[in-house]
Amino acid sequence: MSENLWNIEKIPYVGTESLRQGLGFRYYDADRVVAGKTMKEWMRFGVAYWHTFEQRLVDPFGSGTAIRPFDGKYSTPLDLALAKVDYAFDFFTTLGVDYFCFHDRDIAPEGDTLRETNAILDKVVDRIEEKMKETGVKLLWNTSSLFTNPRFLSGAATSPFSEIYAYAGGQLKHSLEIAKRLGAENYVFWGGREGYENLWNTDLKREQDHIARFFHMCVDYAAEIGLDSQFLIEPKPKEPTAHQYDFDAATSIAFLQTYGLADKFKLNLEGNHANLAGHTYQHEIRVARAAGMLGSLDANQGDKLIGWDIDEFPSDLYETTAVMHEVIAEGSIGPRGGLNFDAKPRRTSFTAEDLFRAHIVGMDSYAAGLLVAARMHEEGVINDLVAERYSSFDSGIGATVEDGTATLASLEEHALDIPQAELMAAVKSDHLESVKATINNYIVDTLGRA
Amino acid sequence: MSENLWNIEKIPYVGTESLRQGLGFRYYDADRVVAGKTMKEWMRFGVAYWHTFEQRLVDPFGSGTAIRPFDGKYSTPLDLALAKVDYAFDFFTTLGVDYFCFHDRDIAPEGDTLRETNAILDKVVDRIEEKMKETGVKLLWNTSSLFTNPRFLSGAATSPFSEIYAYAGGQLKHSLEIAKRLGAENYVFWGGREGYENLWNTDLKREQDHIARFFHMCVDYAAEIGLDSQFLIEPKPKEPTAHQYDFDAATSIAFLQTYGLADKFKLNLEGNHANLAGHTYQHEIRVARAAGMLGSLDANQGDKLIGWDIDEFPSDLYETTAVMHEVIAEGSIGPRGGLNFDAKPRRTSFTAEDLFRAHIVGMDSYAAGLLVAARMHEEGVINDLVAERYSSFDSGIGATVEDGTATLASLEEHALDIPQAELMAAVKSDHLESVKATINNYIVDTLGRA
Amino acid sequence: MSENLWNIEKIPYVGTESLRQGLGFRYYDADRVVAGKTMKEWMRFGVAYWHTFEQRLVDPFGSGTAIRPFDGKYSTPLDLALAKVDYAFDFFTTLGVDYFCFHDRDIAPEGDTLRETNAILDKVVDRIEEKMKETGVKLLWNTSSLFTNPRFLSGAATSPFSEIYAYAGGQLKHSLEIAKRLGAENYVFWGGREGYENLWNTDLKREQDHIARFFHMCVDYAAEIGLDSQFLIEPKPKEPTAHQYDFDAATSIAFLQTYGLADKFKLNLEGNHANLAGHTYQHEIRVARAAGMLGSLDANQGDKLIGWDIDEFPSDLYETTAVMHEVIAEGSIGPRGGLNFDAKPRRTSFTAEDLFRAHIVGMDSYAAGLLVAARMHEEGVINDLVAERYSSFDSGIGATVEDGTATLASLEEHALDIPQAELMAAVKSDHLESVKATINNYIVDTLGRA
Amino acid sequence: MSENLWNIEKIPYVGTESLRQGLGFRYYDADRVVAGKTMKEWMRFGVAYWHTFEQRLVDPFGSGTAIRPFDGKYSTPLDLALAKVDYAFDFFTTLGVDYFCFHDRDIAPEGDTLRETNAILDKVVDRIEEKMKETGVKLLWNTSSLFTNPRFLSGAATSPFSEIYAYAGGQLKHSLEIAKRLGAENYVFWGGREGYENLWNTDLKREQDHIARFFHMCVDYAAEIGLDSQFLIEPKPKEPTAHQYDFDAATSIAFLQTYGLADKFKLNLEGNHANLAGHTYQHEIRVARAAGMLGSLDANQGDKLIGWDIDEFPSDLYETTAVMHEVIAEGSIGPRGGLNFDAKPRRTSFTAEDLFRAHIVGMDSYAAGLLVAARMHEEGVINDLVAERYSSFDSGIGATVEDGTATLASLEEHALDIPQAELMAAVKSDHLESVKATINNYIVDTLGRA
Repeated sequence: MSENLWNIEKIPYVGTESLRQGLGFRYYDADRVVAGKTMKEWMRFGVAYWHTFEQRLVDPFGSGTAIRPFDGKYSTPLDLALAKVDYAFDFFTTLGVDYFCFHDRDIAPEGDTLRETNAILDKVVDRIEEKMKETGVKLLWNTSSLFTNPRFLSGAATSPFSEIYAYAGGQLKHSLEIAKRLGAENYVFWGGREGYENLWNTDLKREQDHIARFFHMCVDYAAEIGLDSQFLIEPKPKEPTAHQYDFDAATSIAFLQTYGLADKFKLNLEGNHANLAGHTYQHEIRVARAAGMLGSLDANQGDKLIGWDIDEFPSDLYETTAVMHEVIAEGSIGPRGGLNFDAKPRRTSFTAEDLFRAHIVGMDSYAAGLLVAARMHEEGVINDLVAERYSSFDSGIGATVEDGTATLASLEEHALDIPQAELMAAVKSDHLESVKATINNYIVDTLGRA
Repeated sequence: MSENLWNIEKIPYVGTESLRQGLGFRYYDADRVVAGKTMKEWMRFGVAYWHTFEQRLVDPFGSGTAIRPFDGKYSTPLDLALAKVDYAFDFFTTLGVDYFCFHDRDIAPEGDTLRETNAILDKVVDRIEEKMKETGVKLLWNTSSLFTNPRFLSGAATSPFSEIYAYAGGQLKHSLEIAKRLGAENYVFWGGREGYENLWNTDLKREQDHIARFFHMCVDYAAEIGLDSQFLIEPKPKEPTAHQYDFDAATSIAFLQTYGLADKFKLNLEGNHANLAGHTYQHEIRVARAAGMLGSLDANQGDKLIGWDIDEFPSDLYETTAVMHEVIAEGSIGPRGGLNFDAKPRRTSFTAEDLFRAHIVGMDSYAAGLLVAARMHEEGVINDLVAERYSSFDSGIGATVEDGTATLASLEEHALDIPQAELMAAVKSDHLESVKATINNYIVDTLGRA
Repeated sequence: MSENLWNIEKIPYVGTESLRQGLGFRYYDADRVVAGKTMKEWMRFGVAYWHTFEQRLVDPFGSGTAIRPFDGKYSTPLDLALAKVDYAFDFFTTLGVDYFCFHDRDIAPEGDTLRETNAILDKVVDRIEEKMKETGVKLLWNTSSLFTNPRFLSGAATSPFSEIYAYAGGQLKHSLEIAKRLGAENYVFWGGREGYENLWNTDLKREQDHIARFFHMCVDYAAEIGLDSQFLIEPKPKEPTAHQYDFDAATSIAFLQTYGLADKFKLNLEGNHANLAGHTYQHEIRVARAAGMLGSLDANQGDKLIGWDIDEFPSDLYETTAVMHEVIAEGSIGPRGGLNFDAKPRRTSFTAEDLFRAHIVGMDSYAAGLLVAARMHEEGVINDLVAERYSSFDSGIGATVEDGTATLASLEEHALDIPQAELMAAVKSDHLESVKATINNYIVDTLGRA
Repeated sequence: MSENLWNIEKIPYVGTESLRQGLGFRYYDADRVVAGKTMKEWMRFGVAYWHTFEQRLVDPFGSGTAIRPFDGKYSTPLDLALAKVDYAFDFFTTLGVDYFCFHDRDIAPEGDTLRETNAILDKVVDRIEEKMKETGVKLLWNTSSLFTNPRFLSGAATSPFSEIYAYAGGQLKHSLEIAKRLGAENYVFWGGREGYENLWNTDLKREQDHIARFFHMCVDYAAEIGLDSQFLIEPKPKEPTAHQYDFDAATSIAFLQTYGLADKFKLNLEGNHANLAGHTYQHEIRVARAAGMLGSLDANQGDKLIGWDIDEFPSDLYETTAVMHEVIAEGSIGPRGGLNFDAKPRRTSFTAEDLFRAHIVGMDSYAAGLLVAARMHEEGVINDLVAERYSSFDSGIGATVEDGTATLASLEEHALDIPQAELMAAVKSDHLESVKATINNYIVDTLGRA
């Protein structure tokens, strides 16, 4: 299927024989059944168009270092954009992933008016549609970049300038139409400029009212055109604005509830964003699960000593194990979710081959996490621990709390004459250090013998 | 009224003559009318019993350094507790504050059973009630310490142990009865152990269900006994547990909405807690205001380079100005709120006199903030800026967004053929540097000539 | 002198009449004498070529928003570079600053070889030299960009690739020649890529040996050509690499001492860099002063809740007062130092006028800091406090510590039989809250009546 | 040898059969030879007296939760202190560690004068000496608590109060005598109060001069009494004071060099302290190695999302692998160093058994790290990578840099005419993602098959 535009053969499954990581999968074996589903069904890996095909590996202090096979070969932006579609689908099939994701502005250059921009975009979407049919690769989600162009410098749906708001609405409309046309599983909203630089000149309430209206219009338009993609909000705390409104999962849930949008949206969560908000990735996923709002996942990792969004490819097995534990407990990554690699190689990993290497590491790390989590679920290690820990609520006074019959008076009556020592006997150590070692043991044993 | 137990005369208003700060108020003048109310009506300052009378200025690496006038004078814990009531009220009247706040376990020692503990507590509450009548000092809020005693090591209303939950319920019941008896303006819930150390052994959803039930029982019991204090949740992110459920204002709002408690609770916000969650204090207040949930304020400040809760007395005029700006815009610190000094002198400020010095600095810093904010409101400087910035939503396409008639289609129609350059002309610089300088100018001009 | 290329008249001194900040100085009055020197002598403000004339206000999520008067007017990069020299000097004189700073790669485009690049650079330097003579504006410092070009992706003087090291050496040689030619007061080294992404593949010791050799070569070459500019290292902790070798002042001092370079270099310190390293700006300056290594200052500010280098224009009066306190105590900002605005307007302050507004705010904020610090020095407020606090070392046992005669045995003999209570009587409260309020008082009183 | 005071049998080696972690070692097998030495020779594990026998598991918001076998059994502080010595040595032998560490104030209560305190201390030291002989357990290091007692609230050797300085000197003298008597391998200085709360009232230079004098007196006294323990400084950044002078390894090195102490001291490094300073643990060790200053290690871990010193028992296999990689590369943990568990169980792990569990997890995690690192060294994986990466400095122009013959002119000559494309060909990708996966592979393969 591959035309070998990247000069790399289809990435093989090589297993665990060699320890020095090369161009082959160690754990990821798409059709291997784990915990009742194939690996590819559990993961639904997606490649991010922007990082993989657009990212030049710039940083605020340096020009791009990336070397890409399409560099310098195409004479117009549109030719390049169209060619990149071929490179992209060849990348997907060479790597062996079933999904991809894109922002509208990644895939095609802009024109002078929205009408012209849409026309250019449609040409690229035509090519994408064709390649999707040809390869069977599907769209995990698309979205609209309402943050890159200078016009959005003070926001899009929270812009203080109604012309910009209107433009954003128009842009979004077409982006939803593309989602419909390409059969997107989900449609993501990341509010890259929806926040503030400074509160003194910001009407936070008015801005939030505006963006809530915007989301309602999107919901209405999706209904109108029969778009059934799952809508997702992607939380992120303090970049690029000093405060982003969708700070974290809980904040996004509060917003959706406040504005009557909670039944229309779920969350697309990311590891690096979680860390920037002061949370673990597992925390954000658990919060979303508790609210019934787990939608999809962005697979990357941060460095907790670094204060910005580095979007590293995931390699930390503690984190991938924790994430896949949550996913197995949930039954899936949201109803239509997947694992999108919102990740880029480091600036020092600048070759085209590094794009494959980095994705392999990411996919393997998640496959490893799946193997470990599946075994922990199968052997009940975490479930046993938790069930035992909360068992006092299964009967007696605890059960009256859960069945709603307890009152402060009934609790007081129960507790009033218990001596301190007796009370303390009800409190059990959680042997937390041993719990952590148990996780270690499952990781190394499962993977070391994989 | 003061018995001079602290050996300090009533703190005078000395004005701005001396620059080296001593034992007198520079800005705080209780009955001075600013922006339509007296300073004391705007502020409703409260002294925190725990920090002022219980805090020994320990830290994790050192024993307490505090020197207090009641040290070593009383032979039993109860005698000391009763005496401290006198010292406390003498402190309030010497300083000239109208409110105080306390946790149940600050003011009285525990017995072996809850019944015995309640009995001891009631003796101290008797004395407090008497002193309140005698001095006119009022209770801004009380609360229950469900975090200090080892029994709460894994939580109180989120404890995995139903015996502890029941005990917490009984303890809370009596605490509400005290609120009723003493006419508390508010009743605060700070979930000092309501969170988790580690997600692997935590059933987050079950714990949140439990604490929501707990709050409902409290609401029911308040109704039953006719307690009309405003219930308040106090957000704090990651201390003492690795994750506190009430991470910040938005998270607390999400929780209250999810469990049908949003109309019964408001928020008690704190500057240091805001910083630990990655926010400014002004941000937390603004978020609460937008949700109609501003309840009361804990006046302290953190050090953003320090990762824990240092509870410094407030002295940063940028922060007090921003807080009082929000308060004036809101009309008050919540319906029944005040400014409670959840603050302690530094460990190196260990004398009894430092307690007065630190409160003076805190009160003066907020009085200064009030003066500046009042002038900015009076001269319309911030309001003008904001009104102008969002004015494009007052008419035209912007107004259709606000009146609910806009759709993606109407927005697209509006925007489709506007050239980029024309669009950019709608985007205005916010001259943010000048805005910051304007705030500086108001601070120094207002206070330098005060 | 100004050709009014920016369409703005020379920025006037308007004083403190209007509180809404406009296009005039409130405090900065170049020839006003404060603490024995004119304001311009104390400050020696410098404009940073890269931020002011090159910075497009991009961020990792958005294209540049800047609107500049030279945009779109010049057909070749060299024509633009030459024209920018005129715009730059017109900016300096309109604003009224006496110094500027530049990196070699800001001011001119590169050629294909270093020889070609040097030739292009020299053409721009010719124009700069001419404008310097014409206007009297001087070069506070120049430096060499060994970080922007992809060739430096793994470092320059710490690159693992000797070809790159050699290139960096060649580039630096010409940069020193330019310093000589233009009479640079200082020459700055900021090791933008001198650090590591990951320790596993890094030979930290070998890299540090290499860069130390590099610095020795620079010292030797400066001697050879008779360049007498003060060499400066600019510390910064963790951006753009995961670890930058010049983490902070102390780390840089350790490096310079280890490699025998301490007498040849001083430090160029920056507020935002200080914060990223976990320090206050005042701390970094104090550390440098204690080591006799204060060289020059980069005037900007960070946001302590933001984890990266935002390079805001300084407006925080607490920070500018603290910095100027250190400067007055030192007698100057280093022997040949100045205040370089390594700062950019926010992305939302994108007009050309905002460049002036932002510099005005920065210059005024430092002028304000100077006024406050000068008065505190004049009235001895801080000096008195410190002298009193340490006075026990002026005589008695304390003096034996300072004169070197004390031994552990003599100290033991002194201390062995002192009862605890007596010992504690030697310990004094520092009344830290009152100290902070005193600083507030000096700020508002000095500036409010300025 | 054990009297079974803890009611726990000697901890067995149970190997990798059970995955749920219990009371047995999985990896740590004291006499197993790895990379040429036994595990116990590589590690030299030490138990920290303060955390294990003194720590009540308090936190700033809660009373101690610890349950210990000696609780409530002894009627005087001295009796308890003496009994704890027996419990301690029984703990050491039951666990199977060869070393311990203590602060003077952990092991014995204070009297009213230093003379009385020393006398009490000596009684406990007598018992310790006896138990050391009896069991063969050795002293890894001792130290003096110059931070807990309120007298040190503003520092000890940096106190502004000469009486306190003198007292600290006397206290230190006796502590050195104990080191001599007990044959301490090392003597540690952690400056728990040596720093500042605020710069405004601090004479940083004078304080650093004082503490340098203090260290010189210690060096002199050690020489006088023939104490040959290695002196160690323990860096820590910002706790308990706002700034600690020994911020990190580099800062401590700068201080030691500045004051002529670099040949007398090495460093005792800790993982949690490293993180608080913004560094990885591996970084701090590497910095010390580069300076020839690796002395000993405190084995614990932090949580990078938590801003203070939590002193968790180490369980992160990435970190223990990295640390042991550095140790093997160095040949040892410093000349006389070991791995001291400066760690405490979580407050929720409060039983006596948890003390064993936590130490087992810590010892096993480091034994696991040793196994992985030894294999990586044996197979040359990291060494190969690094040697290859820097190989261009082994010959040609690179070699002239290392042999000192290069000059800027020779480098320029080499580089002047190389086209950009040719230059870029010298720059190699570091395939960083694959490097990280290789580390993963070594961890799981080595341990999964251990």
